[in-house]
Order: sequence, then structure tokens, then C-alpha cells
Amino acid sequence: MDVRGYIGENAAGFFGALSEWLAIPSISADPGHHDDVRRSAEWLAGHLRQSGFPVAETWETGAGGAGLPAVFAHWPAADPSAPVVLVYGHHDVQPVEPLDEWESPPFEPVQRDGQLLGRGASDDKGQVLFHALAARASAASGRRDPGGQAAPPVTLKLLIEGEEESGSTNFAALLESRRDRLGCDVIVISDTTMWAADVPSMCTGMRGLVEAQIDLRGPERDLHSGSFGGAVPNPLHALADLLAGLHDRDGRVTLPGFYDKVIPVSATEREMFARLPFDEQAWLDDAGHSRAATGEAGFSTLERIWARPTAEVNGMWGGHTGPGGKTIIPGQAHAKLSFRLVANQEPADVAAALRDYVAQRTPPGIEAVVTVPGSGVRPSFSPVDSAAVLAARRAMERAFGSEVLFTREGGSGPEADLAAILGAPLVFLAVGLDSDRIHAPNEKVEMSLLLKGAEAAAYLWDEFAATAGDLTAAR
Amino acid sequence: MDVRGYIGENAAGFFGALSEWLAIPSISADPGHHDDVRRSAEWLAGHLRQSGFPVAETWETGAGGAGLPAVFAHWPAADPSAPVVLVYGHHDVQPVEPLDEWESPPFEPVQRDGQLLGRGASDDKGQVLFHALAARASAASGRRDPGGQAAPPVTLKLLIEGEEESGSTNFAALLESRRDRLGCDVIVISDTTMWAADVPSMCTGMRGLVEAQIDLRGPERDLHSGSFGGAVPNPLHALADLLAGLHDRDGRVTLPGFYDKVIPVSATEREMFARLPFDEQAWLDDAGHSRAATGEAGFSTLERIWARPTAEVNGMWGGHTGPGGKTIIPGQAHAKLSFRLVANQEPADVAAALRDYVAQRTPPGIEAVVTVPGSGVRPSFSPVDSAAVLAARRAMERAFGSEVLFTREGGSGPEADLAAILGAPLVFLAVGLDSDRIHAPNEKVEMSLLLKGAEAAAYLWDEFAATAGDLTAAR
Repeated sequence: MDVRGYIGENAAGFFGALSEWLAIPSISADPGHHDDVRRSAEWLAGHLRQSGFPVAETWETGAGGAGLPAVFAHWPAADPSAPVVLVYGHHDVQPVEPLDEWESPPFEPVQRDGQLLGRGASDDKGQVLFHALAARASAASGRRDPGGQAAPPVTLKLLIEGEEESGSTNFAALLESRRDRLGCDVIVISDTTMWAADVPSMCTGMRGLVEAQIDLRGPERDLHSGSFGGAVPNPLHALADLLAGLHDRDGRVTLPGFYDKVIPVSATEREMFARLPFDEQAWLDDAGHSRAATGEAGFSTLERIWARPTAEVNGMWGGHTGPGGKTIIPGQAHAKLSFRLVANQEPADVAAALRDYVAQRTPPGIEAVVTVPGSGVRPSFSPVDSAAVLAARRAMERAFGSEVLFTREGGSGPEADLAAILGAPLVFLAVGLDSDRIHAPNEKVEMSLLLKGAEAAAYLWDEFAATAGDLTAAR
Repeated sequence: MDVRGYIGENAAGFFGALSEWLAIPSISADPGHHDDVRRSAEWLAGHLRQSGFPVAETWETGAGGAGLPAVFAHWPAADPSAPVVLVYGHHDVQPVEPLDEWESPPFEPVQRDGQLLGRGASDDKGQVLFHALAARASAASGRRDPGGQAAPPVTLKLLIEGEEESGSTNFAALLESRRDRLGCDVIVISDTTMWAADVPSMCTGMRGLVEAQIDLRGPERDLHSGSFGGAVPNPLHALADLLAGLHDRDGRVTLPGFYDKVIPVSATEREMFARLPFDEQAWLDDAGHSRAATGEAGFSTLERIWARPTAEVNGMWGGHTGPGGKTIIPGQAHAKLSFRLVANQEPADVAAALRDYVAQRTPPGIEAVVTVPGSGVRPSFSPVDSAAVLAARRAMERAFGSEVLFTREGGSGPEADLAAILGAPLVFLAVGLDSDRIHAPNEKVEMSLLLKGAEAAAYLWDEFAATAGDLTAAR
């Protein structure tokens, strides 16, 4: 039986199993639900074993297992020289508040008008589980291993995290410690979206992130602006100057060397972006009724949010902020900033450039401290002409029967760590939609798209098997 | 008897009376003490009548007497063509908290080492009351009126406010409504300070004040910086740009026309400022250990705080200001500003210039609202070569027996309203010191300086009488 036929025959069972899994409230951010996250991991491991994975186990994370478990599964190809594919997703879900805005209880999934509603339906349980269906379909339609058992055409590994919605705190350490079992030729990420149900597309990258705080100190106490105004440095003036100077007239970030490692958006990708049916006015309405699109000169809105790095001030404060006036020169001023990065910017470079910028621009008499918590998030990127992306595009086009365009994501995730630590390229294979209300009440997924996702995944294993040489050449 | 002899003989009685007055806790900011402010006014009116003023009355203020009373007194000169002098001061005092920092109770005045300690001793009861002593000394040493009564050489009017420490809310209206009885050729302000006990000086102006708030609105809600960052306007960026742009590289304020009406500091005044024994490092230490003197290029620190206008950001806030990071583009940004003005800047002009500046510099997609509460405070200024200032300087030099230098005050007060509404020049005759701890615990006054103040005032009436033509020519 072919892949599409297999998936069609097994669709009802697939949605039944998914609904069972969605009923487990695996909210990783809520300690009251940590046992549910563990149950969710056990459920998935069991389901993967039933689906044919010879190995499916839960992996504890964090020191002494203080974190929440990931699930690892392994199904070797019949041909030991076949490419090794690692699929990444997560089995934990977002909190559900405000509960009274849900039309049906978040952990009692219901099917309605071709949609499956419930927390995690799209982000990310639905998109994880289609890989189990795809693996069965692929094995059923293909070769058999030396023992006569059905097997997929590539060696499949699944790594399904349990802490993605609470910061992936232990994820990088898990990758490092399990590197021997996670070796792969390509990594498939199924945790993003397509442009629209009738505009299939593939994400080719996510932005990185550096967060920072600037603290300025001037006089040791607030000073009277009559007695001292005009003759001592005002930390709020210094802060305004630092923040205003972060961008030039063209909307470019002025940190020294900020763009040095940036990979330019290719002509091919720009053309693909331009072909997306983008309604800028609708997008502005969605953006809190923003009244203008603006940003770096020479780039479209989609290029600006997907493929160009940014500096944003997220908060600032200092001096008198209560009712009425208070004629002071305040002692302190503060700002919180975040930078979105694109390949191949390094978070550490950007943090260092910010420190240099602040040190050079802070006026005499003001003391500046720059704090950068953590090590930031690296950007991820797969060139549209890479072997892995081309293979995935062919698989998607075969499943959807139409041309597949390219997008990126402006947000940031742990995907780049996977690529960096495991030394393999990423491709994003996903069928979620922006309208899926992920992280919000009434999350849903289009059931037909989950089946297309399974189909595309099965085709992708074929594509990878057929072009194994290209994949390994890219290593 | 000469003035100095009279004052010396009557010193003990003067300090006895002042101590009696200081015992009345006339705190205008505290409704619980408003009866005390009324008692204070009655006490002063009574004392002025005893001192020889034919007229001394309390004036209710505010609609239906809702304000606190001022005291008006009038002592006509023997010569009806003599100049008319109006003395301004106030009989209300600052609150006394923190009470436990007072070495002796604030309303139980004590004399110690040549100082009189108590709330109001310097600001402003001591400096008001020396005028009663001066008037007696002047009358005793001089001419007699047609009825054979002793009289001062000029017609003296005293207007002693009861709401100065709570914002002078009803003062301008009082001046307007009593304009017919307040007519004068010159106004003498006794509510400021000298440089030091051994460096007698005269203040020649105070800065004006305009306060404002800028509110910027962008998106209707905070936006995710991953999804929207780089493509919609960020109100915090717009605010930083507005505030950073308020000053140019030379520290000059960039509001259109800001300096158009500014009277330049004269060479004489700059030279007088430069001769003051100013210890900049000690001043910086006093300025909350500020680490650098800075400000408008081409001016000294004293010129910057006294004689040049400023723009200061007093507070700003917007976006995420709590612990940790929050990667948002915030919907709003806010700032509070104040401008110190010098003669002849008009508060209304500065407010209008700020509105223009914000309107021109706010980027597309951001909505800006500028709020300017009230009508601001006008700057006051008396040129150092004006007849009134020259007369006062001669009087001070005669009392102190040494050269008198010039200062100004960087702060703001209602004095300019007096000059504008009554149409007469101001002179500042005062003997307070910066070390008097006004508005703070343990306020004190140097007793010898109050007597010098009385002496200088009496000599000033002589000076005004002798140069009546110069005074009225300046009208």
C-alpha cells in the first residue's frame, strides 16, 4: 500500500491516539503538572513502541533528574549506510489561562469541522505524532530489514523535549551528554508553521536572541533641578542618547561589527518571500493596530521580521514616574533591550559589541553597567539551495500537490543548539498555521494538514534515502 | 541716634519678638496647622503696628477666603513724592519632618553660639522681621511727618504671604485684586541667600520653570518582538530619540527659538560670578558626589545653574520594568520634563516650542501628546547696572563694610509675578545662607546677619530716597 493510502486508512486511529495524548495536561511551566509531563513522556514512548520503533525510552534531564523527561526513539533503516535523521519536537504544552475563554475544556479534545481543538493540538503534540504515523506508513510501504521486519528507508531518531514551553533549560546539556546516541546527518524540526492551509511553505530559519540590561548611575541621590540643573550629567539624558543612537537614519543597528557575520538574504529567498500573499494592512491590524510599517531601509516587512537582525528597547525607567511633577535630576536610569539575530551572528559577539558601544558612548560622570543574562539563543538557518531543504521541498510538494514557498520565523528557539551541538543541518517540516491559536485559548489544528504532514515526512525519508550522497557531502 | 546704634540697642528685643513668632507653627502645607498660619498673620500685623506702621492688616486669599491670609502693612513717608517700596516675604514655614533629627524642638526657638535655631528662623520669618526693625531704625534716625511723627524716608509697604511654602496658589490673584493698594516704584525681595557670611552678595534673578509630560502611543497592546520586531515603530525608540535630541553636541537646548529672548549674561555679571570663591569639587560632592561638571559649552558651572536656561528629563518609563526579560515592543512610552528659564523667556513660548518639536520629530505610526500643567513660572532678573540694584548694593556695602558681589538663584519662585503684575523692578536683599538648613531639620539663622539685614534695609530706604529720580526713570 502506498503512503497516502496507508495514512488515509489509519487516520481515525491516529486522531484517537492524539486525543488520548492531548488529554494529558503536560504543562511544563506549572510544577503542579510536572507529573502530567512525566505521564505524557511515558505515553509517547509507549505509542512509539507500538508504532514500530524498536527503541523508545524516556530520558531524565537536569542534575539528578530535576528537569522534565524527554523521549528518545530509534528505528534503524534496513540499510546501515542509509542517512540518519533526527526529528525534534516537544511534548509539553503552554498553560491554559484564561480558562473561561475556552469554548471547550483545553484537555478534553474535540473534533469539529475538520479541526481538532485542545491545548497542544498544533503546538506541538499533533506535529510530533504525525511522525509516528509517517514512520509506520514509510515502513509499511517500503523495504524490510535483514530480519524481514518492515523498516523506514532512513534511520529515524526522535528527540521529543519536555521543557520547551518553560525555556528548554536543560536541553543543551542533554544534547551534550547524549551526543553519542544522537549522531545524525540531518535534523528535522516539526514545531513551526506554514503560511496558510492553501499556501504550503517551509520555514528556513529562526532568529537568535540576546537580552541585556543597561544600568546608569549619576549622582548618588536625586538632585534639585533648580540648584543643579544644567551643570551635572543627567542619567536619563545619557540613557536616551544611548538608546537613540542604537539605530542610524536608515534603521540600521549601529553596534560596532553588528552586521559583519550576517548572511545576506539571497535573491531566491527574497523572490519567494515576495510571492507570498502578504496583506500588509491586515498584518498591521494584527500588530496591535500599528499605524505604520517601518524599519531597516531597503527591506520589505517580511524580510525585516524574518531575515534581518534588530535591536529593540523592551523597557526603560528612571526618575519620577508617579503623578504630578518633581523637578529632579535622578540618580539612576535603566533599560532592558533585546536583539534578534540572524545567521551567522553569534550572541557573544553582539553582547561584546553592546558593551563596547555603551562604554564608548557613556558621557563623563555617568557609570554604566551592562548585564547580559545567559548566553543567548543562536539563530538557525538552512539555505534554500541546500540538499536537505531541496529534499524537504520536494517531499512537501509531493504531499500537497502544489508549489511550496519559503518563510522564516522571527522568533527564537533552541533549534540552533541542535545543529551546533550535533553538527548537522536543519530543515523545518511543519504544518501548523498562525491561526492555530497556539499559546492562547482554543488552540486547534487542521486535521487534514496533520495527515499532509505525515505524508510529507514519509516522502522526505524517501528523498533523503535517494540523495544520501548530497546530504553527507554537506557535512 | 544712627541706624546701627538703634539696631544694636534694640537687638535683644528684636530676637525676643522673633522667637515669639517662631513659636507659632505656621505650616501652610498641613491643614492641621492652618489655624496657626492665621495666628502667625495676626501676630505679625500686631507687631508691625507696634513697630510704627500706621496700617497693618491681614488679607484673606482665595475664593471666599479659602486660602491662607497674607499680611499687608503701610507706612507713608513724610514726603508724599518719595518713592514707594514694596517688601515681599512670607510668614508660613516648611513642614518639620523628620522630627527626630531636630536637636531641639522646631517651634521652641533657642539661641546658641550666635545662631537662632527654629523652623522659619531663616526662611523666612527672620528675614521678614528685620524689616520691622529697619523701619523703626529708619524712622527714628530720620525725618518726621507733617504731624511730627517719625517716618521712613520712603513710603514702605510690606506684603507678607502665607502660602509660599505650599505653592503660592492664590498669590497672583491676590496681587491682581489688590493692585490699587500695592502700587510701588520698586519691589524688595527678602527670601534668598548670600554667598557666605564673610562674602556678602546680592541675588539678581531667579530662573523660571515649565513642566511638561510627553506621552507616546504606538501599538494598542505590547507586541512580541520576535513576530514584529524590526518592522513596527517602537514608542521607546521614539521617546529616546525625542529626549536625546533635546540637546545638541554643545549642550544647548534644541527647541525652536528657545534662546531667542534670552538676555545674555553681561560681562560685568560674569566677572562678578568668577570672583566668588567657588570650590567646584566641594560643589560636586554636595551634588550627590556627581563625578563631573558638564553642561552648555562656553559657560562656567555657576553661569550654567544661575544664568542659562536648561531642559531636564525628570523621569521616564515604558514597557517592561520588572525583574527578568520580556521581549516586547511596548504600546506606550512616557517622560516628564522640566525647563528652567532665564529672563526674558516666556513659559508659554517654551511650552509651544516643545509642542512643535515633538510634533515635528515624532515618527510616523507614533501618536504623541504633550501636556503642560499650569502656566509655568516666569524668570526674574534685575540687571546689575540698574538703579535699584546699584542702590541696594551701596546699602549692603555700607552695612557690611566690604564689597558686595552678585549671585543668582537657579530655582524658581513667584517673584516674577510681582514684577509683572505690579510693573516695578525687583531687588533681592537677603542675608540667609545656604548653610541655614532651610526646608531641613535644625534650620538656623546667623543672628548677626539678621541685624546686618536690618541695617542694610534702613540704608536702602535712604538710597532710594536719594536717587528717587533714577528709580522712577526706570519705570
